[in-house]
Amino acid sequence: MRLSRYFLPVLREVPKEAEIVSHRLMLRAGMIRQQAAGLYSWLPIGYKVLMKIQRIVEEEQNRSGAIQLLMPTIQSADLWRESDRYDAYGKEMLRIEDRHEREFLYGPTNEEVITDIFRSYVKSYKDLPLNLYHIQWKFRDEVRPRFGTMRAREFLMKDAYSFDLDKDGAVKAYERMFVAYLRTFHRLGLIAIPMRADTGPIGGDLSHEFIVLADTGESAVFCHKDLLDKPIPGPDTDFRGDLKPIVDDWTSLYAATEEMVDMAEYEASVPEEKRVSARGIEVGHIFYFGTKYSEPMNAKVMGPDGKEVAVHMGSYGIGPSRLAAALIEAHHDDAGIVWPVSVAPFEAMLINLKAGDAACDEACGKLYNELAAAGIDVLYDDRDQGAGAKFATADLIGIPYQIVLGPRGLASGEAEIKHRKSGERETLPIAQAVERLKSLIEPQRRNNV
Amino acid sequence: MRLSRYFLPVLREVPKEAEIVSHRLMLRAGMIRQQAAGLYSWLPIGYKVLMKIQRIVEEEQNRSGAIQLLMPTIQSADLWRESDRYDAYGKEMLRIEDRHEREFLYGPTNEEVITDIFRSYVKSYKDLPLNLYHIQWKFRDEVRPRFGTMRAREFLMKDAYSFDLDKDGAVKAYERMFVAYLRTFHRLGLIAIPMRADTGPIGGDLSHEFIVLADTGESAVFCHKDLLDKPIPGPDTDFRGDLKPIVDDWTSLYAATEEMVDMAEYEASVPEEKRVSARGIEVGHIFYFGTKYSEPMNAKVMGPDGKEVAVHMGSYGIGPSRLAAALIEAHHDDAGIVWPVSVAPFEAMLINLKAGDAACDEACGKLYNELAAAGIDVLYDDRDQGAGAKFATADLIGIPYQIVLGPRGLASGEAEIKHRKSGERETLPIAQAVERLKSLIEPQRRNNV
Repeated sequence: MRLSRYFLPVLREVPKEAEIVSHRLMLRAGMIRQQAAGLYSWLPIGYKVLMKIQRIVEEEQNRSGAIQLLMPTIQSADLWRESDRYDAYGKEMLRIEDRHEREFLYGPTNEEVITDIFRSYVKSYKDLPLNLYHIQWKFRDEVRPRFGTMRAREFLMKDAYSFDLDKDGAVKAYERMFVAYLRTFHRLGLIAIPMRADTGPIGGDLSHEFIVLADTGESAVFCHKDLLDKPIPGPDTDFRGDLKPIVDDWTSLYAATEEMVDMAEYEASVPEEKRVSARGIEVGHIFYFGTKYSEPMNAKVMGPDGKEVAVHMGSYGIGPSRLAAALIEAHHDDAGIVWPVSVAPFEAMLINLKAGDAACDEACGKLYNELAAAGIDVLYDDRDQGAGAKFATADLIGIPYQIVLGPRGLASGEAEIKHRKSGERETLPIAQAVERLKSLIEPQRRNNV
Repeated sequence: MRLSRYFLPVLREVPKEAEIVSHRLMLRAGMIRQQAAGLYSWLPIGYKVLMKIQRIVEEEQNRSGAIQLLMPTIQSADLWRESDRYDAYGKEMLRIEDRHEREFLYGPTNEEVITDIFRSYVKSYKDLPLNLYHIQWKFRDEVRPRFGTMRAREFLMKDAYSFDLDKDGAVKAYERMFVAYLRTFHRLGLIAIPMRADTGPIGGDLSHEFIVLADTGESAVFCHKDLLDKPIPGPDTDFRGDLKPIVDDWTSLYAATEEMVDMAEYEASVPEEKRVSARGIEVGHIFYFGTKYSEPMNAKVMGPDGKEVAVHMGSYGIGPSRLAAALIEAHHDDAGIVWPVSVAPFEAMLINLKAGDAACDEACGKLYNELAAAGIDVLYDDRDQGAGAKFATADLIGIPYQIVLGPRGLASGEAEIKHRKSGERETLPIAQAVERLKSLIEPQRRNNV
């Protein structure tokens, strides 16, 4: 993509309303624009990041055996009356009346709709286990939305729902999602720790939050240090096999959010030098809640013994729009964002130091075409601007590799590659730039499966 | 995908509420489920089709130079007051009050929001031309939603918005979208004819609808027969070059919807044997409307002469969720849907005629793995069901190629391939099935770029 034909409205000033670094950087880098309190447009590079996150989430959901569909954003109030949550949900639910004065709402979550879909079609235990998920915009009318897309009112959520004949089956479904979540966050470039959590308005008796440690996190967390560098289950994980050993291994070390922590237990089970007491950002939340919805909503199947039973359910959420912000909290420096290759809006940025100069334009144009032909997703800064502004933009928007070419390099036949993360620079013959970049980027792509 | 692990709730009965064939088939094939009047869930194969449509739309938008972003579904009423459309829009607009009693709405279209984004960042003619698009759910509170996803209340729309310094530039932007739309519908497997159209509530003085001919179409259309087999601009079309000759060529032949038709002109300009008077489904609509929004909303840029001018705008809509239905209206037979390869939920369906038989399971399992390894998107019917039911399901959901294998074929070493569209069957050695399918599918993929 040529920057002169793109839409990348970076801001020079630090927006006053933004309290946390990810919000500031998303505004400054032209990733998002606030349309109203808690409502954001995703500008082109923001949208690209969001879709890269979504793709990884989908791949890991699919790998685990979950099946994708899509439910509408607007839901009927009547369904929520069946589960008795319509009146209980409170002011966070955006309630809507249509032209015929029928009551609807903008879905804050989808337990009711998915249970309705399930009960309409599934009648036998033979069709279980089943895990259905979608990635759809949700709305929660927070009293005071803040922190940008970290806590927006309209936000993107992946929510999966599992259906099983009994608790044993449901726990296996829970384990599959537990492992899928470990893999998902790892591929996104995050260290996310599963912690026992409160079940809140979803209900149920088994729940983990996945927490990324960050100073700006919304709650205090307490965990064992060894959780920070535990190896992640690989792409060859058999999701139809027994995942209990993996889950047991992860949950054997103490980790809890402030709502759940028992300080005596924490101190008893974690040696002092292994105690991590920090702040954390919730990036995923999984629940097992048994028959809380299937019982009142009559989602029953015929069991092997010919008797009808209410199915055991769980739900599993990840917020891609919140993750975009959490990723920046985890990956930034003073100059701006530092994207991992897996979610970067572009993998490389080509900087023409003297746009308008015929020789520079020709050499950069050629290099740009070669990079694109090599399958590298490259943003080409071909604008008539000073070098300083171009470097600052490249650093701010956080593209992993910069390739810099100007009159001096052209004279000596050399380009420069800057590694955004380490700051390292290497000078190399222009003719080798494409191969060198491929050798830097491709292993990161290959490892991210 | 193994059907035993998938979620494909086909219905045996013809749903009573469905008036048109696409609605009936989408319900029967387990593509959609109605959640409330005009609100649909997209079940797994429906969702896959919707995403394949979306991908083609995106590819052609990007090729034409349009840039993707994403605006929220919920919009502030204040913005619509600036353009004077808030009160004018009427009951089709879903109006919403949040917990602080501020007025919002569920966007039926996005001229106001995109104009707000534009005016916030773009200040100079040097940043033009610009075409920004998104693919987002919209809501229009139709008094009587019907025809399934053809006329839903919540529907998916691609809407692009062009910004230019003057009318000349805006007409060029219009031409780019005109050609992009020709290519998009062609790749989707549709013959869509551009027709002069009324501009309606969007406003403006230049507008074309793209119309697919179908008996169930919502309006009468009148056009020259030669438009039905006009060659489509190829993938090498230069969208930065002069597209006027292509647009002139297409618009030189008479074509108009009933709202716009001048029967005298129609009969004078189209020889009797070339007159097509039929019904049509609108699948796309493009508008040029000058400064209708930029003037009241103050979206101005500095021109080359240093003077501020309101930008000339156009908007360009395609509805992927409506297209899924329109595609079925155009591609079905008595047995069910007949998908083109480009948008089929799966490219091939492997039918095991005797699931549970060890030899059949082994041979089919092997074939399934080979097909998947060859990059063919295959659905494997491994369920313990009779052959008749399996054939009926395969025909109903419209997968382009069926590969059938059972005990008799296993004994003779032969499989059967059925072409869904022609009904043609061919028997061939099992070992050749993968190569044969590749040779059938790959050219269709290659041509669809």
